Amino acid sequence: MPDHPFQVDGARVLSDLNALRAIGTYKTGVHKPTFSEPHMRSLQWLARRLAEAGLAATIDGIGNVLGTSEKPGPKLLAGSHLESQNYAGWLDGPLGVVYALEAARVINPDASAAGAVEVASWCDEEGHFGSFLGSRSYVGAVTEADIDAARDRNSGQTMREALREVGLAGLARVTAERGRHIGYLEAHIEQGQTLESGGLAIGIVTSIVGIWQYRITFSGEQNHAGTTRMDVRKDAGLALARFCVAIDDRFPQLSGPRTVWTTGRITLDPGAPSIIPGHAEMLFQIRDADPEVIGRLEEELQSMAAEFSAQGRCNVTVERIRTGAPAMMDAGFQQAIEEASTAYAGGKSIRMPSSAGHDAQVLATIMPAGMMFVPSIGGISHHWTENTADADIVRGAEVFVDACRRLLAK
Amino acid sequence: MPDHPFQVDGARVLSDLNALRAIGTYKTGVHKPTFSEPHMRSLQWLARRLAEAGLAATIDGIGNVLGTSEKPGPKLLAGSHLESQNYAGWLDGPLGVVYALEAARVINPDASAAGAVEVASWCDEEGHFGSFLGSRSYVGAVTEADIDAARDRNSGQTMREALREVGLAGLARVTAERGRHIGYLEAHIEQGQTLESGGLAIGIVTSIVGIWQYRITFSGEQNHAGTTRMDVRKDAGLALARFCVAIDDRFPQLSGPRTVWTTGRITLDPGAPSIIPGHAEMLFQIRDADPEVIGRLEEELQSMAAEFSAQGRCNVTVERIRTGAPAMMDAGFQQAIEEASTAYAGGKSIRMPSSAGHDAQVLATIMPAGMMFVPSIGGISHHWTENTADADIVRGAEVFVDACRRLLAK
Repeated sequence: MPDHPFQVDGARVLSDLNALRAIGTYKTGVHKPTFSEPHMRSLQWLARRLAEAGLAATIDGIGNVLGTSEKPGPKLLAGSHLESQNYAGWLDGPLGVVYALEAARVINPDASAAGAVEVASWCDEEGHFGSFLGSRSYVGAVTEADIDAARDRNSGQTMREALREVGLAGLARVTAERGRHIGYLEAHIEQGQTLESGGLAIGIVTSIVGIWQYRITFSGEQNHAGTTRMDVRKDAGLALARFCVAIDDRFPQLSGPRTVWTTGRITLDPGAPSIIPGHAEMLFQIRDADPEVIGRLEEELQSMAAEFSAQGRCNVTVERIRTGAPAMMDAGFQQAIEEASTAYAGGKSIRMPSSAGHDAQVLATIMPAGMMFVPSIGGISHHWTENTADADIVRGAEVFVDACRRLLAK
Repeated sequence: MPDHPFQVDGARVLSDLNALRAIGTYKTGVHKPTFSEPHMRSLQWLARRLAEAGLAATIDGIGNVLGTSEKPGPKLLAGSHLESQNYAGWLDGPLGVVYALEAARVINPDASAAGAVEVASWCDEEGHFGSFLGSRSYVGAVTEADIDAARDRNSGQTMREALREVGLAGLARVTAERGRHIGYLEAHIEQGQTLESGGLAIGIVTSIVGIWQYRITFSGEQNHAGTTRMDVRKDAGLALARFCVAIDDRFPQLSGPRTVWTTGRITLDPGAPSIIPGHAEMLFQIRDADPEVIGRLEEELQSMAAEFSAQGRCNVTVERIRTGAPAMMDAGFQQAIEEASTAYAGGKSIRMPSSAGHDAQVLATIMPAGMMFVPSIGGISHHWTENTADADIVRGAEVFVDACRRLLAK
């Protein structure tokens, strides 16, 4: 039997998650882009729940929600995010926020438990306007000029305009009070199949892999799709297709066992059916925990670009637009999650890197940080069919709250 | 010496073309999408020129400009279009309209010349809202429901809304008075290199090739770009790239000497850098004068789709969304252009098919039709650098007006 005196309310956790799913529902998932009406309604929902839990709640000038406690003793920061990818899943973000809320509800009122859990919902983890703007603002890494420059990647609306529209313009941005927290703990769905296929309940994150992102551009010659003979064409779209295929053919020999790469967006210019595209662009991403692997792959991209350009049809350039060093999770936090997992999940846990980016990697730059995963059914993520079994959600909440208790008791 | 009594004003032709280039200028070309402000200003400019030339000018309920003559005798319809592709050339369309205007100015006031030239500017030849909606409206092939359904392919604005905005909503659409015209003659830049590379001045169009258009869709599985292992991915974007490359590898053995094919637009869904696209779509076009070649290529597309689907990663479907039978140009019209070319261009002409679509193919469904080409520098088309030497423009105008005279005199 676990050596703990308190009780996680699994029904309350599930009910809260479903309440958040009811705001901005899309099929069995949600559609809550950053600063959309359902996103803002979700933030207000959280602020009310925090107040009910006895925390002082604020929504700051970048859309972070922060619930602080006046209970004396050590303080642990916990949370995740509430906006979603477009037409995506209900747990990606809300799970970690509701676990943190539940931890505050269970631990803070208990005079026999040391310290308090403080709750955060970081704005725009999903990157509609940038890269971790909410948590990066909290650690002091976002300037006013960064906000001036940020735009919605789909609508093109500026972040300033969006902040004005939702009534956050002019509010102060809250930054971390150094030394206030013993660290940051975040829970998240795994978004992969490691736990499910191993019959495991809990992933103990050891590091968060870096994301390297590239803009690869192809310049050919725009011309008429009827009157330009095949042999004289300089079709930038076709060059792009050949480049994608070449990546897929060559990368496997150069990559590590966990390396992944993705072309997420392709644009042909001008994009009309009767015009040979003169210009084409792809957004390309590589993820790996080992910078040496990344270096090898980036070198290959550059030499492929040179090869393609040398063929004379189209000029290819590869520009790195995001450089992601891996973030290490704190060993003490890993230990606390493992102990909680032994107490509440029969020890069915595994230490593993996270291949997805999370706010924990940003918080890790200023305080010890940890992350735990619960299983994703079929590994599906960033799609409205994303799901986790109710039993896994409840068991995860128990492990999470117990890990918080152990960290605060240390 | 030519056996003709009248004089084409070459300076006036060049001046008119430059006046149209000054409306909606983009670098050395123009940006005049259908129903844009510069497009509407160009239509009004033409209506004024037509009135000055003694024609009764109207802009009808779909944006066609028509200039009719009260002169007795046979009537020849001539024209082209005034809107442009986005950020494209200054002559694609305006050349044929100004030639027709010049023919009316030269022939109609001349009592010794038989009959009159009537002038048309067909709306939306460039297909911002559909396929030849202006000329198809004139021949009676566009229903009110077609207009209800038409949308700007870039902005998504409905044609109804656009017509309202530019003040054309509610106006009648003019349709052809059967038997009024002996036929339709259109001049256009070649948009290819046949004339230039052969040192020729005039292309006598024998037929306008058909355009077959396809929507090819790829359905895979949308997932997280970090947490989904490479070997379990069902990446619809990668399948699309492989399909494009397979087309380029296999089509050359199956196509004719003038067949062309183009992927003009690619969309990955959802199109975010951190999401494996679950759905992808390409707009694909084939042009050839020989339906048997098209049949062979379409069959290949379908069997490639079956092959790709059978591999089990992504399902591929090929849907034909446009079927273009080639349009034959009238033999008498070809003869008249050839004679005019002998008289004014030293016989430096060639009979050739048009690989681009033109309004003449639509007019050919209700009356004899002909087309003539002038050279394009470097074959460049659908780009703002499109151009033709002034001398070629003026010589083309002489051939065109003489061909009109010969057709009316028959």
